[in-house]
Formats: sequence, structure tokens, C-alpha cells
Amino acid sequence: MAGHIAAAVPVGCFGAPGSYSDEAMQGYFAGASIYPSYYDQFEDVVQAVASRHVKYGVLPIENSSTGGITEVYDLVHRYDCRIVGEKYVRIEHNLLVLPGTALDDVQEVYSHHQGLAQCRGFLKQHSAWKLHPYFSTSQSAAKVQTAQNHGLAAIGNAVSANLYGLDILVRHINDNTTNFTRFFIISADSEEQERMDKLTLVLTVSHEPGALYHVLGHFFYSEMNMTHLESRPIKGKPFEYFFHIDVMGSLHDPHVARTLKALQKHCRYFKILGNYPADQGGIVDEIRTDRRNVRT
Amino acid sequence: MAGHIAAAVPVGCFGAPGSYSDEAMQGYFAGASIYPSYYDQFEDVVQAVASRHVKYGVLPIENSSTGGITEVYDLVHRYDCRIVGEKYVRIEHNLLVLPGTALDDVQEVYSHHQGLAQCRGFLKQHSAWKLHPYFSTSQSAAKVQTAQNHGLAAIGNAVSANLYGLDILVRHINDNTTNFTRFFIISADSEEQERMDKLTLVLTVSHEPGALYHVLGHFFYSEMNMTHLESRPIKGKPFEYFFHIDVMGSLHDPHVARTLKALQKHCRYFKILGNYPADQGGIVDEIRTDRRNVRT
Repeated sequence: MAGHIAAAVPVGCFGAPGSYSDEAMQGYFAGASIYPSYYDQFEDVVQAVASRHVKYGVLPIENSSTGGITEVYDLVHRYDCRIVGEKYVRIEHNLLVLPGTALDDVQEVYSHHQGLAQCRGFLKQHSAWKLHPYFSTSQSAAKVQTAQNHGLAAIGNAVSANLYGLDILVRHINDNTTNFTRFFIISADSEEQERMDKLTLVLTVSHEPGALYHVLGHFFYSEMNMTHLESRPIKGKPFEYFFHIDVMGSLHDPHVARTLKALQKHCRYFKILGNYPADQGGIVDEIRTDRRNVRT
Repeated sequence: MAGHIAAAVPVGCFGAPGSYSDEAMQGYFAGASIYPSYYDQFEDVVQAVASRHVKYGVLPIENSSTGGITEVYDLVHRYDCRIVGEKYVRIEHNLLVLPGTALDDVQEVYSHHQGLAQCRGFLKQHSAWKLHPYFSTSQSAAKVQTAQNHGLAAIGNAVSANLYGLDILVRHINDNTTNFTRFFIISADSEEQERMDKLTLVLTVSHEPGALYHVLGHFFYSEMNMTHLESRPIKGKPFEYFFHIDVMGSLHDPHVARTLKALQKHCRYFKILGNYPADQGGIVDEIRTDRRNVRT
């Protein structure tokens, strides 16, 4: 193909330029030629991927302080997409204002629901401020810029401050100093990659006593390290649950394939959402030093 | 004490009069004399309980379509409160407007984040509408009343329509026809009650392979029925998890007490958040007909 100019790969990203999802996309695809589109709603990203308007989608899936993002799991599953990668991004929230704004000027604060939740301690110190849950952290920054009102502030990252010409009035206002968000890179089809060492599964257990216990037993006795377990309700079946499970392993390993086959006898529903390379970037190393996996 | 007038019991309730939490409170305390206070934020309810400004608090803890409400679990745990009861309420969302408003007039919709999420299908049919995540469904109804603007609508229950003089323009717009929210009744102290058949536990497992597997094994071999399992991140320890577990059983049953003691050898942290009567109301019966528990 030498001599041809490779077409940029279309990628759908949640949020707006400057968002944490944008950071995840830029980090994951560093060095590759991509053509990004940005979407306001999780479902729009997943729909763009499922309908093949874009090759890849980038969505937040789990935050280390507020937990799994239910909606994204549901959508990836519902639109039958595949997880082909993951990326961890460190979340550093700041109070962003128009240049020349003092702390006493601020009356209202915009941010994503999770942004407000992650800065609860800081916001409690300013209880007179009116809080507005908004679509995303980056759109909150854009709103402050557009409004040109010194009574408004946004909670977001340094990239969006820069992008929307805002000043960082208070730096690093997260409750939690080690706050990461995990992002999924999704596609309409699964992909063969050199290293595929992490599996994301979705399953429901059969109506027999101990079904989940026995599922976890297969991982335990096969020495497959489970890194995440989360239960999610099944729509239309009150308080019945899907389990989202991440385990280390490759489908090309016959031992892993056999284990996954064997545990299905305890499941009513079983689906592999993806087999992909675990993020081994610098941020993840930092997590690992203090990280304890969910042991089976 | 005959001849004395019993003082009304102070109860702190999330949201505003007319909210689903208000419905849960009124249902749970039906027949009792209570003096309700309403709070905008989950944390304010829990704080009022922990500081004994109110005897009980009422908070949503789990929705059958969007899952566990992370923040509430974290707060109950952080403020060292006890769960003394639970209540299920059927969620029926409606599009609420000022009298005389037609569907074509509507341009903007206010509701709680979860209210918008639970009506996604309906809202997708009106993609031009601007969506505003707001503090609660009942405050959204109050906002539409205050604004007196026919371009605004709220998503909420029939009680708040009535309370704020709004019309129900479209009835029952939930994606899900069987949508329930589970509420916790919390107190600063545990309480002896006649029937205490449900336990809510929070635990972290030790750093040994199979620790969670072995914990579930204790429930399985003791034939204790697990009705809920959810993992929640631990703040400050990225991707390390608390498990919130509901199991049927009473602390007064020596077999249950022995099982809980035995399983703690696989835990680094173990706490009983409450032992209380499972909600056996009409709504729960309805759930049970189609309900499958999370089997251990």
C-alpha cells in the first residue's frame, strides 16, 4: 500500500473536544490517523458504531470513585457491539471560570452529574452555589464561555479550560486524589489483535441454588484472575440481574476457552462482549501499585 | 402512657413533597404519626439522621431498571447509619405540563437524571426537546409550575402533578412497564423488630485467590438466599471494591450468626448495615411472581 495515503479512521467520541473521553480517544489512538466525531449522548456513540458510521466508539465505562456506568454497559450489550480496547484516564477536576473572575463572584456551577458527585467535598464548602447537572464537563466549560457571565463556573479538566479560554480558579478539587475513569473502545465487529489478554463477559445465572457461586468456582479453579464483577438489573424483570465480569485470559488459549464453555452450564445467558489488550500504559502501572483485583 | 399525646416522629425524606421518596415514606409509615422534613441532597438526609435531628431517613437505594444508587450506599456506610427497613414503590413516569399545554408546545424537559434515563425510548421520539437533568422529579414539577412557561415540561409521578397543579399530558412514558424503586429506611441506631428476616452487608474480600468465591460458598452451603450482590469502588483505592450483599436471615438465628462469623475469615472488612423486615407489601408480591433472586 506504499504510496497510498491511508484514510483517517472515523471514530465516535462521547462528549465534546476537550472532554475526558476525548483525552481517552487521543491517548488510545496516539500515532494513528483518526477522524473524530463527537456525540452528546452515550446512545448516539453506540448507534454510530452499530450502524457503521464510525469504525470505533469511545465511552466511559467505570469510574474509580463513583462506580460502573450502567447505561453504557446496557447500550454496548443492546446494540451488539464488541469491546476491542480499554483506556484509563486520570480525572483531575478544576473550577473553571472566565478570566478575571474571583471566587466570590461565583454563584452557579455547571458540570456533568458525575463531575459534581466527584467534587462533593469542595462544593460543600460553597453551599450557596447553585449546582447544575449538565451534559458533560466540556460542554459545561463551553457554556461558561458562551454565557460570558462571571457568576458562572464549570467543573472540568485543564484541556477544556484551554480549549474554551477559561482560567483554572481552583485546581484539583476532586474529593479523591487518585481518581481514574476507564473507557471502552468499541466496534461493530470483534478484532484480532496481537495481545488479547482481557475478557469482558455478560451473563445471567440459572435458577438453581449456587449458580453464581459455581460460575466463580470455574474461574477460581482455572486460576483465571477476575478483575471486575458488577451486577446490573435486567429491564422488564424487576431485580433480576445481569453480571458483568472482567477476567484475564485469551480466547486463543484452549484452557480459557474450555473454562468459559464449562461455566456456561450454570448460566441462562452468556455472551463475550470482547477480548482485548488490557491497558498497560503508565497510568495503569500507577494504579497497579495500589491495586487489588476482585479475587474470585 | 395512656392520656399522653404521642409526639410525631421526625422523619427526613429525600426530595420534595410528591416525590417517589415521599410516596415510600408515606407508605412505610402508614398509620404512624410522623413529622416529615424534606432534603435536596442524599447527604443532607443521612447527615440529619446521623446527627439525630430526625429519627429516620428515607432514601432510594436501587432501581429495577437503572441499578444501584452508589452514592446512597456510600453515605449510609460513611455516616455509620443502620438500615431498619425497606420499601418498594412502583415508578410511573408521566409528562407533566401546565394546563393548556399541547405536545407541540413542549421544547424543554426537566427531570431527575434517572427520570430522563428511564424514559429514554419516549424522549428519543422527541429528539428536538432540550433535556435538563434536575435535582428531583418533584422539583422538576415545581420548576414548571413556577416558570409558568408552556415550553417547559417535567417528567414525574401523578402525585407531584396534583401537588403542583400540572396536567398529565402523556401517561406512563417509562421504557419499562415494571419499574420499581427500592428505598431504605435508615436510623442512627439498629432496632429490635418483630420480624428481622433480611440482612444488608458490606464487605471487602482479603487478598487471596477465591476469597469472594469462598464468601458466597458460606451462603450457599448454609442455604442462605442471596437477593442482591453489587460491587462498589473504594474511594482512594482505584478499582478496589466493596461488595454490598443482601441475604435472607435473622441475627437472632444461631445458624445465621455462625455463618456470618465463619465467612469473615475471607474478608478484610465486614459490616452489617442492617437486619430488618423484608418489604412484604402488595407491590413486592407483584415483583415476586416474576422475580428471580441472585442465587449464590
